[in-house]
Amino acid sequence: AILAAIQAAVSDGPLTGKHVLVTSGPTHEPIDPVRYIANRSSGAQGTAIAAALRDLGARVTFVTGPASVPPPEGVAVVRVETARQMLEAVEAALPADAAVMAAAVADWRVANAAGQKMKKDGSGKAPALEFAENPDILATVSKGANRPALVVGFAAETEKVVDHATTKRLRKGCDWIVANDVSPETGIMGGTENAVTLITEAGAEVWPRMTKDQVARQLAARIAQALA
Amino acid sequence: AILAAIQAAVSDGPLTGKHVLVTSGPTHEPIDPVRYIANRSSGAQGTAIAAALRDLGARVTFVTGPASVPPPEGVAVVRVETARQMLEAVEAALPADAAVMAAAVADWRVANAAGQKMKKDGSGKAPALEFAENPDILATVSKGANRPALVVGFAAETEKVVDHATTKRLRKGCDWIVANDVSPETGIMGGTENAVTLITEAGAEVWPRMTKDQVARQLAARIAQALA
Repeated sequence: AILAAIQAAVSDGPLTGKHVLVTSGPTHEPIDPVRYIANRSSGAQGTAIAAALRDLGARVTFVTGPASVPPPEGVAVVRVETARQMLEAVEAALPADAAVMAAAVADWRVANAAGQKMKKDGSGKAPALEFAENPDILATVSKGANRPALVVGFAAETEKVVDHATTKRLRKGCDWIVANDVSPETGIMGGTENAVTLITEAGAEVWPRMTKDQVARQLAARIAQALA
Repeated sequence: AILAAIQAAVSDGPLTGKHVLVTSGPTHEPIDPVRYIANRSSGAQGTAIAAALRDLGARVTFVTGPASVPPPEGVAVVRVETARQMLEAVEAALPADAAVMAAAVADWRVANAAGQKMKKDGSGKAPALEFAENPDILATVSKGANRPALVVGFAAETEKVVDHATTKRLRKGCDWIVANDVSPETGIMGGTENAVTLITEAGAEVWPRMTKDQVARQLAARIAQALA
């Protein structure tokens, strides 16, 4: 830990002097004190990206939901649970030269979350859950006053990956989208490999299937080029 | 691992020759390929109980949801994700001399879980989730043809712990209920300590706050007495 921090501090890489914000992991949205809505993001890809950016000399702020992999050494870690907490932490971390929004943020939260554990009432019917749309962190950062020079979003899709991701890039106002297919049969969500397509203004770039560490290094190198 | 297995095989404890079924961990109920409903059970208490029963010589079948602690060595592990899968695994594991149902099983599953990732449709409204009641594993085992001689249930409550657990014992048809208060301020769910009340036909027995390992050893000793 100390070694990694020292290496980060003394390294003179292409991102030295740059501040990069990385979000990672799932968010958890409470239903009641014991139940919550989660998603299968392990945080592995976001963690690898933060480490790769650190290795190129960046000062990294790492805003993470409850991930199943530990955060990297040598970065400033901010732990959150819900989407709303993540937005707050992200806004507090700006300004930054670049933002990589790798977290799998819940689109919805439970609007009527209960203060006590919900019980079966014998009717066989579940308590009705009402949902409210969460803030859109990627769009908020992309369109905000403190917008980083480079904003990278992620799109985890299960069908029509390039179509959905290309539309998402325009709708959110970010610069790049790292898109991938998280259908269960790919083994990507929770696994060690990733197969991504990078969507930029220039179009769609299909990267070969490689480890999440390799994806992270390739993306960090591209970010360094873009900020140079 | 090998050592623990050998110790279990050669030990001549009070539960030698007995088969005990233990369930543990949360269940996850899918919403779509990437989202699911979870609960804060870490599996720590169920895992400690399985280890303590093994240490007293029992042959243990350990049916576990996606827990955050690894299963004990020297027991037969059956991994499941949903409540329905857990019931199936439990029924396949019977007959047993005792069953300790420590899993935090979801009361409800999503009846209209989607095969593709649900998308925001721009309306600001979340897709309506419909819920179906999950099978009641504790009641099914307690009232089933293959009922173990001793069935122990758990009650994780956030209020009126003894009242709720006493009612639950009668409604489910089990012999004992291990009740505890999982209000967030107790730090029990996900923590290393537990404060339980054992509900039996004779009434409520309040145990002092102790580690989950100590609770497990005390409960295993009581089970050995009951089966002697």
